[in-house]
Amino acid sequence: MTDLMKNMDRLFEPKTVAVVGASANPDKLGFHVMKSLVRGGFAGRIIPVNPSGAEIMGLPTAASLADHRGEIDLVIVVVPAGGVREVFAECAGRDVAGIVLITAGFKEIDDPAGAELHEELLAALAGKPIAVIGPNTYGFVNLIADLNASFTPEFSSLKKGSLAIVTQSGGISHLLGFLAQEAGLGVSKIVGLGNRLNVDFPEMIAYLMEDHHTKVIVCYLEGMENPRKLVETARRYRGKKPILVYKAGKAKIGNRASLSHTGTLAGRTELYRGAFRQAGMLEIDDLATLLDTARALSVCPLPAGPGVAILSGQAGCGMVAADVCEAEGLNVISFSKATQERINELMPPIAYRNNPVDMGPAWYDAARMQMIVQAAMEDEQVDMIILLMMFASANVAVLAGIQDLLRDWRQRKPLISCLLAPPGIWEKEINYLQGQGALVNYPTPERAVRAAANLWRLRALNLKA
Amino acid sequence: MTDLMKNMDRLFEPKTVAVVGASANPDKLGFHVMKSLVRGGFAGRIIPVNPSGAEIMGLPTAASLADHRGEIDLVIVVVPAGGVREVFAECAGRDVAGIVLITAGFKEIDDPAGAELHEELLAALAGKPIAVIGPNTYGFVNLIADLNASFTPEFSSLKKGSLAIVTQSGGISHLLGFLAQEAGLGVSKIVGLGNRLNVDFPEMIAYLMEDHHTKVIVCYLEGMENPRKLVETARRYRGKKPILVYKAGKAKIGNRASLSHTGTLAGRTELYRGAFRQAGMLEIDDLATLLDTARALSVCPLPAGPGVAILSGQAGCGMVAADVCEAEGLNVISFSKATQERINELMPPIAYRNNPVDMGPAWYDAARMQMIVQAAMEDEQVDMIILLMMFASANVAVLAGIQDLLRDWRQRKPLISCLLAPPGIWEKEINYLQGQGALVNYPTPERAVRAAANLWRLRALNLKA
Repeated sequence: MTDLMKNMDRLFEPKTVAVVGASANPDKLGFHVMKSLVRGGFAGRIIPVNPSGAEIMGLPTAASLADHRGEIDLVIVVVPAGGVREVFAECAGRDVAGIVLITAGFKEIDDPAGAELHEELLAALAGKPIAVIGPNTYGFVNLIADLNASFTPEFSSLKKGSLAIVTQSGGISHLLGFLAQEAGLGVSKIVGLGNRLNVDFPEMIAYLMEDHHTKVIVCYLEGMENPRKLVETARRYRGKKPILVYKAGKAKIGNRASLSHTGTLAGRTELYRGAFRQAGMLEIDDLATLLDTARALSVCPLPAGPGVAILSGQAGCGMVAADVCEAEGLNVISFSKATQERINELMPPIAYRNNPVDMGPAWYDAARMQMIVQAAMEDEQVDMIILLMMFASANVAVLAGIQDLLRDWRQRKPLISCLLAPPGIWEKEINYLQGQGALVNYPTPERAVRAAANLWRLRALNLKA
Repeated sequence: MTDLMKNMDRLFEPKTVAVVGASANPDKLGFHVMKSLVRGGFAGRIIPVNPSGAEIMGLPTAASLADHRGEIDLVIVVVPAGGVREVFAECAGRDVAGIVLITAGFKEIDDPAGAELHEELLAALAGKPIAVIGPNTYGFVNLIADLNASFTPEFSSLKKGSLAIVTQSGGISHLLGFLAQEAGLGVSKIVGLGNRLNVDFPEMIAYLMEDHHTKVIVCYLEGMENPRKLVETARRYRGKKPILVYKAGKAKIGNRASLSHTGTLAGRTELYRGAFRQAGMLEIDDLATLLDTARALSVCPLPAGPGVAILSGQAGCGMVAADVCEAEGLNVISFSKATQERINELMPPIAYRNNPVDMGPAWYDAARMQMIVQAAMEDEQVDMIILLMMFASANVAVLAGIQDLLRDWRQRKPLISCLLAPPGIWEKEINYLQGQGALVNYPTPERAVRAAANLWRLRALNLKA
């Protein structure tokens, strides 16, 4: 493990955190950072640093970083750009492991002075392996450690879980965090890399691959100076944990904005696309699908192949799903003779009994419905089940009736569903089944199928390796 | 107006409704239909018809349709297929305006007897212009009239509004209904056409074009015997009300399932695509986008052109939106010199001040932010505004600060937003602004841009006409 990696351990799990630029004034970011730490329930020591020396949120304040003589693991910096170099030099002179540099005004600005300042900061570290998140970032959150080192206190209300989110944009971090919260998806860490002084995607991926609390990694990337290093790092860990990546800056105008935003041209899409593939990273081009896929990964095993059985409570939804399966490269298989015979026995000729199966006529008979699902599950060509059912009053009891079977099959073949009902109906059953790892549910057949297709793509990517 | 159209008026706004096959047994669809009518608050007369003659839900029951001598506008039929012809003959012998035929087992089954029965039903109407919804349908709901003529009582809890949903699949009707409910989108009518005995898409579109309660029409279509009639009808009303259409059965396998589902081959995609375009109907290939677009239409005016200003609280979200704008055919315009100067004065050089504008540095100053939005609004090249902002604690007051301006500009240029925050934050402001018709909000930048692009497509489709 490199010295920088060791320091990243202390950065993400510090005992003592100093906030240079801490403030009691709600109009200052230094106020929100203090609120994040205090309200977030951080159990370690918090040291506000402010020349006034007055107490902030009931905590004694150091007039300067140098004034505090005890050990400090993490320094969060929210002072104007001009004062940052001095703080860095002070950090380099003592045993600080990490810095979160929220301050903006470095490489991303038009003025060449910004790029100079960036170099000066690196120089101020004097070769010390201090891990720096930023500059130009909201910070990071380690939900597992109750450490909210960001200017957004509300991040602390996210559900704890195993998804790590790493982005080059504060806005996208907030977007993905709030969407995860809405979807009930648990998060381990959210990290805003900003302009990446010395902690970039490769360093974060290496760290998260060793992080026991993280099982799935989601990256939002605009552009990098050295994509090759990212590929090499991801390849080294290939197959260990899934990496999903969204690459922004595909459009000409977005690319132009990227240079200003994080100091890097977004670069050619095809080049990145090939690099991600080589590295076993799954590229996803829609933010909702990105999180939908992360959610599937947090619940389901990977499928052994692209073979899909579509079991639908209503024929129309099955048709829509079949259309999207075909477009997304999944295979709506023909059942084996034995499977088809089992299903035929359970359903009247009035129903479409081939794949996609229209289970509508079995609504009133959960036992029959369960046997249909089981027959499909047991077909060797079926690698995944897509289960679709719209509540319709007469089928209210179906879900409770088949939940034991679904639970028994959990973690064997992915079961991706679109079960939709008015508020309050089926919520208990769906939450139970999701909690058991028996299924993952989406609000439309299309979103369910896209998530299923991405599970298979991820598997295929790493089969080829 | 044809006699069928006059009868459709009485079908959708009846004074008296009879339910043939009404039941007190919750295992029967006839129970759920009764519950829909009674719980849905229908103010007219309800006549349960059941040979037992026992009261159902406190209502006196007729032993047969013939036994009830008074006027009947609408007959809902939930008896087995074999008993339907007799009911139709009775309806034809008296002044019934419409029938909802929930019973399945006609043209959609493999057995040729099904197709024969279909023809027999037509014959049983004896040339009378009785409007029939179905067979093989859940029914319909007219929310404005508190009339739930379906087997899903929960449809009555949907919000009243101006969106009509017409589908060839009960499942998709339920899906779109529940998604509309979740999105707070008001609905006028939901109609399940099923196998379309004599009320098909052309008849429904002609009816809804004259329906004062309906402003936007959404269709889910699998396949039709006579697409030409649909095109002719839609063209006749071209430009009067927007029609959005989702066409299922694009995949080979979906097409095969369609024949079984509603007795019609889904047919060639390209043929339908051309027909929709000719008719000024906007085809949308994703169910979520279909409703997202309907929601935009329920709030915003149509844009005069494809010119977009992206105003973003965080640079990353602006980049994502710019990428999607380019992919969707919107034009992220270059501001006029005057607009750009106004924006430059309001923002520090640290920000990206071109389109997409990174308004981040103005978070603490809602007045400045408001002036930026106004400058963009007033630029003649800007046909639409895409406003993106992720809550970040420090920007909590921004939305309240600019809401007067947004309200003042309502209905002048579409303002499509992605404003996202943890639960409880900004909800009041967003609901207020949506209620005022000042903006329409989506959970991701992509969904916002796709809805915006569809507003422009709809305008362009009808400009060419």
